[in-house]
Parts: sequence; structure tokens; C-alpha cells
Amino acid sequence: MNGAESLVRTLLNGDVNVCFANPGTSEMHFVSALDRVEGVRCILGLFEGVVTGAADGYYRMAGRPAATLLHLGPGLGNGLANLHNAKKARSGMVNVVGEHASYHIRHDAPLTADIEGVARPMSDWVLTSRAATDIAADGAKAVEAARTAPGKIATLILPADTAWNEAGGPAQVAPPAPRACVDDGAIDAGAKAIRSGKSAAILLGGAALRGKALEWAGRIAAKTGCRLFCEYNNARMERGAGRATVRQLPFAVDAALAMLQDVRELVLVGAKTPVSFFAYPGKPSVLVPEGCSVTKVAGAEADLEQALEAMADALGARGSAPRVNAAAHDTALLAGAITPDGLGALFNVLLPENAIVIDEAVTSGRAFTGAMMGARPHDWLNIMGGSIGWGPAAATGAAVAAPERKVVAFEGDGSAQYTLQALWTMARENLDVTMVIFANRAYKILVGELANVGGSEPGTNARAMLTLDRPDLDWVALAKGYGVEAGRAATLEELAVQFRRGLAVAGPYLIEVVM
Amino acid sequence: MNGAESLVRTLLNGDVNVCFANPGTSEMHFVSALDRVEGVRCILGLFEGVVTGAADGYYRMAGRPAATLLHLGPGLGNGLANLHNAKKARSGMVNVVGEHASYHIRHDAPLTADIEGVARPMSDWVLTSRAATDIAADGAKAVEAARTAPGKIATLILPADTAWNEAGGPAQVAPPAPRACVDDGAIDAGAKAIRSGKSAAILLGGAALRGKALEWAGRIAAKTGCRLFCEYNNARMERGAGRATVRQLPFAVDAALAMLQDVRELVLVGAKTPVSFFAYPGKPSVLVPEGCSVTKVAGAEADLEQALEAMADALGARGSAPRVNAAAHDTALLAGAITPDGLGALFNVLLPENAIVIDEAVTSGRAFTGAMMGARPHDWLNIMGGSIGWGPAAATGAAVAAPERKVVAFEGDGSAQYTLQALWTMARENLDVTMVIFANRAYKILVGELANVGGSEPGTNARAMLTLDRPDLDWVALAKGYGVEAGRAATLEELAVQFRRGLAVAGPYLIEVVM
Repeated sequence: MNGAESLVRTLLNGDVNVCFANPGTSEMHFVSALDRVEGVRCILGLFEGVVTGAADGYYRMAGRPAATLLHLGPGLGNGLANLHNAKKARSGMVNVVGEHASYHIRHDAPLTADIEGVARPMSDWVLTSRAATDIAADGAKAVEAARTAPGKIATLILPADTAWNEAGGPAQVAPPAPRACVDDGAIDAGAKAIRSGKSAAILLGGAALRGKALEWAGRIAAKTGCRLFCEYNNARMERGAGRATVRQLPFAVDAALAMLQDVRELVLVGAKTPVSFFAYPGKPSVLVPEGCSVTKVAGAEADLEQALEAMADALGARGSAPRVNAAAHDTALLAGAITPDGLGALFNVLLPENAIVIDEAVTSGRAFTGAMMGARPHDWLNIMGGSIGWGPAAATGAAVAAPERKVVAFEGDGSAQYTLQALWTMARENLDVTMVIFANRAYKILVGELANVGGSEPGTNARAMLTLDRPDLDWVALAKGYGVEAGRAATLEELAVQFRRGLAVAGPYLIEVVM
Repeated sequence: MNGAESLVRTLLNGDVNVCFANPGTSEMHFVSALDRVEGVRCILGLFEGVVTGAADGYYRMAGRPAATLLHLGPGLGNGLANLHNAKKARSGMVNVVGEHASYHIRHDAPLTADIEGVARPMSDWVLTSRAATDIAADGAKAVEAARTAPGKIATLILPADTAWNEAGGPAQVAPPAPRACVDDGAIDAGAKAIRSGKSAAILLGGAALRGKALEWAGRIAAKTGCRLFCEYNNARMERGAGRATVRQLPFAVDAALAMLQDVRELVLVGAKTPVSFFAYPGKPSVLVPEGCSVTKVAGAEADLEQALEAMADALGARGSAPRVNAAAHDTALLAGAITPDGLGALFNVLLPENAIVIDEAVTSGRAFTGAMMGARPHDWLNIMGGSIGWGPAAATGAAVAAPERKVVAFEGDGSAQYTLQALWTMARENLDVTMVIFANRAYKILVGELANVGGSEPGTNARAMLTLDRPDLDWVALAKGYGVEAGRAATLEELAVQFRRGLAVAGPYLIEVVM
């Protein structure tokens, strides 16, 4: 067997059985091996940002890495923005990046580039295989790196001759190490802060926002009266009626400071000290109010369920019923113009149970997603690295990971443009995604930021760079171009019809909401 | 004035007056300065690959750098593939990349990344400004780097506080240094090789393929009988009837070896020793036949017109009429099915004089573009780094640089998908581009490469990764989505109607050629 086949069989040994791909000539022996060996599902993206973003969404829902297949330095370059988002989300994946045959690199052919240099800024682990006989062992190390809790970006660079030359067999992959337990000292420090008598809050992050960990946090809140917060962005959060009540810190610095202003004991469980998304003249970077102590109980890599259970015990909260969100999904739909309140009510009522929500609606989203805490229980996935163009790709990967669940992607029209090619992959794989595009015809968030900077009305150049009109994007036509059914809504009534239609279709559906 | 304004005024001092942009919050003070200061034309791309590819196309036609404006590490990441192509084309540009305020970086906010690390593999020059008072001088250095012959990728990273803090005035920019003359020793060596009596050829590259330099080469060929070749890809080549006859080396290794097989003296003027695009088992990387001497007269950075004029004098060719392509644009159009011969004849006849041709048609293009040497005189631009997704972006920039000329972009359906967002910029700026998409519904080049590797019929996974059907892309709908008029052609007659229509429209037009 050649090196490529030994790698495919090694990936399968490590339970990596989905490959999001955009290959080229230098990957052809790997393509051939994937074609010969049974067991890996290969899914094509027409652009590499779709590929890496899909692997991120897949990891968040499947809890295990997918592989990606990328073509040399430029192909990896096209995937970098969503690798950045995935790295910030602490998602695991194994990127297989083709390289020229080792003896060919020095000739500086057109596609020659410093692939390790491109990989390093957005990877946790990078290795170039030196020989066909190394690939299996290198691949095993890549999978082991990717599966290191909570997840890592592993990039394995595969010179073409290491893929086509004769190799040994596949390698065994060590099972993932269990997450590290949090020690008593940290638990006690956290518990002490909460019972200090001062205004206390827990900032939850990572896996603390899901399952039993979240339940334990809800019990602690019920028992002690402390508040639960989470960061503005979270890789995957269980939300909705019956889930523990957790308030999300706002994006805007002043609003975040206001929400935290009377907290005097801030306890971190899976989260970092909160900082502002961007810096602004005269505003702080760190969002902790003056006089507030910060106690770190556990980082995102630790066993957060164990940590929160132990804290609940230390605080006598084991028997308490969690403080949870009340159901708010039986209210009436509003009618008329598209308003934040109307959107909040509509999605609260219509979001199906167990939906996976992809949130990249930016300005439009901020106006209503906070109002959806009382919707039917669902998972909520945020863009973690702030690089827009994540949503369509992440929705693709999430739908592959959880084919039995409905994926609802809330998208800004600006954001969705970076990876709109994902629509084609959704159509080809018949992925069950309803994508709602909020078409406000602008980088609306930037229009607000410019007003903060300049004060005056935008002139010709600012309008040129911040608006998406002249011409308006026709999202229904774009969806048709990719074979995805679509409709348009300009009122809340039309949106309700369209959203119900999207939910009824067992495949992709796109709705352009004219704002 | 703040740092951002001092930079804008410095760019103008260096004749940088076009900015292809996709900005974010950290660039807002730069956006504001571009809005206040008159003189820079700002052009939005909906994806950063459009932005950097447009700057490449612009440089190739305008001969001076544009600026780009990109949002932090991920925004730069999205632009890397076309920076790679631009670097290999030796195009000059000044990338202005926003960064967090310097004091904010250590807080590791979501968009924090190693921007210099992302920039380095695809840049010739990288600098992060340290203070507002440095920006003007840093900007001047960036423009000077970008204008270094034949052109360099300069990436200037601008922390937000260096943009918003108070600075001094703008800086002066040193004029570009003239290209270095080629010394007599190199000229004599080249001339000696050509008159050696052995079978001689000149391999031309860079600026040797244009204007007076190309004419001198044509005179040398006429006088001495030596042949003229160029590499497979060229940044900008003057072709068509009445231009010196230059044969392009084929992509396929065996065909390139065959074309060069009887050459015994190969003289390089602006070109490198020819190498194969990819390596293949058992095939050579270097395409020079055994027993052939290689003489380098000048690299791409040198004054190639001076070099070829001096060689012509050394060879007594000053008075010779150049050996040129015969006109072949008055032949009859063929009818019926879309065939390589039919395409060659059609474009030979219909290509307008002085057109700028963007060639990213890959498999389809190879079949007919070689037959277009007798078309009306035109410029021909190749993708230089091999990273597909260059064409729509480069066409955008070329059309901005040369508004009085018609741009014809030949595109593969696979290639055009990576940067199809360029269609919107073409519509907004009413750019005079006729884009011809050869829709063969596959990465056809890879289907061929796989056959070389595997021999057998592609299976499920190979088909999944190499075909673009299920569903077919509807390019007419995609164009409509971006506000671009479009039509479809399934026969040569329909294509003639569509192509004439595209030429008649004073703005973008897209043709889907169903193969």
C-alpha cells in the first residue's frame, strides 16, 4: 500500500470518517486512496472556506474531528479564516494539505509556497511528512492532537511523493485522554467566592454551557442566588425553555460593562476573563468592573461537569432544582413590518425542538436572538473568531454531523457572501438547513462603528465600502444558481410562511428577509 | 491629522489612488480618512480574494500599485491565494491590514491572530507600524517596496491606535528606481549562444513579452532563425496578428519536453529555467532536454527592452523586420457543437482589437487559446501562481485600470466559483467585462490527473470530489443574483450571438457555455 492509503486507513483507525474536501493534482493519490478504501464520506466544497468551516461545525455537533483535504499553500490560505474561527472555538480537525513532491519544491513551480508558514498562525499542530513510511505514524499523531480536549487544529502536510511511494501499514491511534479533573483547591476558591456575601456571578464557557455541567450551574444559581453569564460568543450552548438561565454578555463595551457593573466576585468556569471584542479610544479592554475579584476555577480544557458538580456539592446545591428559562413559545405571532420584537416572537414560536441554530446574523441578530431564551430547547452555535463567512459553512458541517436535526442558520447578507458556495454542498448532500438571510444591504455593524469614529454622515468612499446596495444582492437567484429552493419575505406574515416552508422541506431552503 | 489620514496622504504622494477594500471595525479610522481626503477611488469586494486579485489585475494593466484594505489576520487570510498569484506574477501592491490597538492584542480577543505570520508567506515586504507618528514613513516605505521592479507585495499592518492617534504630516515617496541595465557580458553570452550554429531558442518572460522588447525579440528571431518561447503562464503578454510569434510551453510535461526536444542552446530573458507545473512519478521536474545549454541573460527585474535591443545589435538584427503572427481573424465561423476548433475560430474572429484577455479556462482553455495567435492584437493575462479563483478578480482590476478597453475573461466553472463575488463589484462599478464560463461540470483537469494515477474508473468518492454536477451550477441565475446580465450557449451559433451581445453591452455580461 502507498503512503496515501496508509493515511486513509490510519484516519479510520482514529474514527475520522468524514472528509470535507477541495483537492488538486498534488492530492490525487490521496483522492485515489479515499476512492479505494471503504469508510470515509467525502464531501466537496467549491471553496476551501466551506471546507474548513464545515469541519468546525461538524466537530461542534459530532464531538469528533473530520478531516479536510486542501490543495497546497493557496488552498490552505483560502481555508484560513474559518480555521481561525475553529481554533478560537477549540474545535478539533485534521487538515491534510498536499505539497509538491519533496524533490520538486526547490524548483519553485507556480504553486510552491511556504505551507508550514501559512498553516502555523491558525493551527495548534503542524507537521510535514518526510517519507511515505512516516505518513501513518504522522497521521496518528495528527488525529491524537486533534482529539486533545477540548479540540485542536492539526495540519499535516503531505508531499506528493510521500503519498505515492510504498509505505507500511496503517498506524494505531491512541484513544483521547480524559479531560483533567479540577482540583479541590480551585473548587474551594470558586465556592468561597460565591458564598462571600458579595454580589457573585459565574462566567461559563466551553462545555460548561451544555448537558449536566449546565444543569449543575443552574442548581448553584438557584441555591446561592449567584448569576450565570456567558461570553458574547460560545462554540455551542444549550438554550431554550427548561435550560439553566444564562445571560450572554453584550458585544457593545458599554452594555457589557453595565451588565457586570455590580458584580464583585466573578468566577470563571471554562471561560476567560471577559475582554471587549475591539478596542475603542477611551474604553477599557478588560470588562471586569473596578473592585471585582476574578477567580479562575477551570479552563476550557478541564472536566467542567466534574468541576461544577463539585462546586454544587461544596455549596450544598446538589438537591436544588436548577433555575431555568420559562417557556415562551406559545405566544402569538406579530404581524406587519419586520421588527426586532416581531422576529424574536416569530422564532420563539416557530423554532423546532432540538434545532441547531447557527448565529451569524451580526447586527440583525443582536436585536432578537436574546429574546429567544424561551424557545423550545435547542443548541446555539456562535462564530467564535469573529471572521464572518463562518455560518453557511458551519451549517453544512453541523447538518452532516446531525442529520436527524433541523439546522437553522441566521445570516447577515454581508457575512453569508464570503462562503455562499456552501449552498451548493447543501443541495448536493440534501442537508436539512433553513438559512435566513437578513438583507439589510449594508455592513450595518460598520455603519454604526463609523458613526462612532467620524460623527458625520458617510461620504462617497465610506458609502462605497460599507453598503451592499447598487445593485442589491438577489439571494433568491443566488440560491437558485446553487440548486437551493428559496423565497423572500418583507413582512412578518411572509416570513412566517417562508420559515414554515423551510422547516417542512427535508433539505436546504433559503429565505431572504428584506429589512 | 491622525495616523490614518497621514497614511492616505502618503499613498497619494506615491500615486496610489485606487483602493480595493473589504474593511472591518479595526480599519474604521482608515475608512474615515479615505472618506475625508479627496483622491482615492475605493472599490468594495464582498470577499477578500476579489480584493487582492483585483489589485493584481490592476497592476498588470496600470503598471502601478493599488492599495488593498483588509480586516485583520482572517481578512488577510481570505486574500492569500490571490496574493500568492500576484506575488508569482511579480505584481506590486500595498496591503493595508488592520490590527487591534497595540495595547489590546495581549487580551486575545476573538479576532486576535499572528497577522505578520499570515502575511509573510505571500508578501515580499511586511511591517507593523509601531506608532501613529511612524505611519507616514512606513507607508512611504511600503509604496517604495511595491514599486520595486518588476513589482512587490508590500503588507503594512496598522494597529487601530496608530491610526487614530495624532500623527505628523504625510511623507514623501521616493520615485521608483529605473530597472537595472543588463551588462555586456550577459548580452554577449546570449548572442554567442544564439549564433553558436546549434538549434537555439530564447525563453521570454515578464516585460520581454510586451512592447518594444517583444519587437526586438521578433527581429532577433527573423535575423537568426532562433525560436521564441514563453513559459506556460505569463503575467501579461502582447499577442495577436502583427505581434512577434512566441510559442507558449504546454502544461503537460511530455508535450513541453517534445516542444523543446531539439533545442541545444536555451537563452533566458526575463524567464526562469522551465520546470513542470507538478511533479509526476518517473517524469523530470526540469524541462531542459539533455545536452542543452542554458544561458541566463536577464531576470524579470532587469531592463528587458535594453537587453533585447542590445542583443539585436550584437546579432545584427536591428534592421530586420520582426517575425510576426499572420492575421487569422477573417475566417469563417464554424457552426454546431462546441468544439475546440470551433471555439478557436470563433474567438479569433470576434475578439475585439485591444481586448484584455483573462485566461483561467484551464482544461477548456488549453484546447483553443493556442489557436488565437492570429486574432486582432490584444493583451493576454495568465494566472501565475496556479491558484484558481484568480480570473473574476483579476478581470475586475484590469477593467478598473483600463476602462477604455474590453476585458474578456475565459473561466472554468470550477475556477470561477472561488471568487464569483467579483460579479457584484463588476455590476456596481459597471466594469466592461465579458465573462465566458466553460461549464464542463467538473474539475476536468483533475479527472485527467486521476486517470493518470489510478487508471480505473472513478468511484463514489472520486466522483464526489471531482465533479461539479448534482446539482449543476446555474451561472445565469448566479449572475442575476449579482445584478449582471447573462445568457447561455450550447452551440457555436448561440455562443456567437451571446459573445457579440457581451461585447455590445458597456458593462459586465456573463455567458455560460454548456460543454
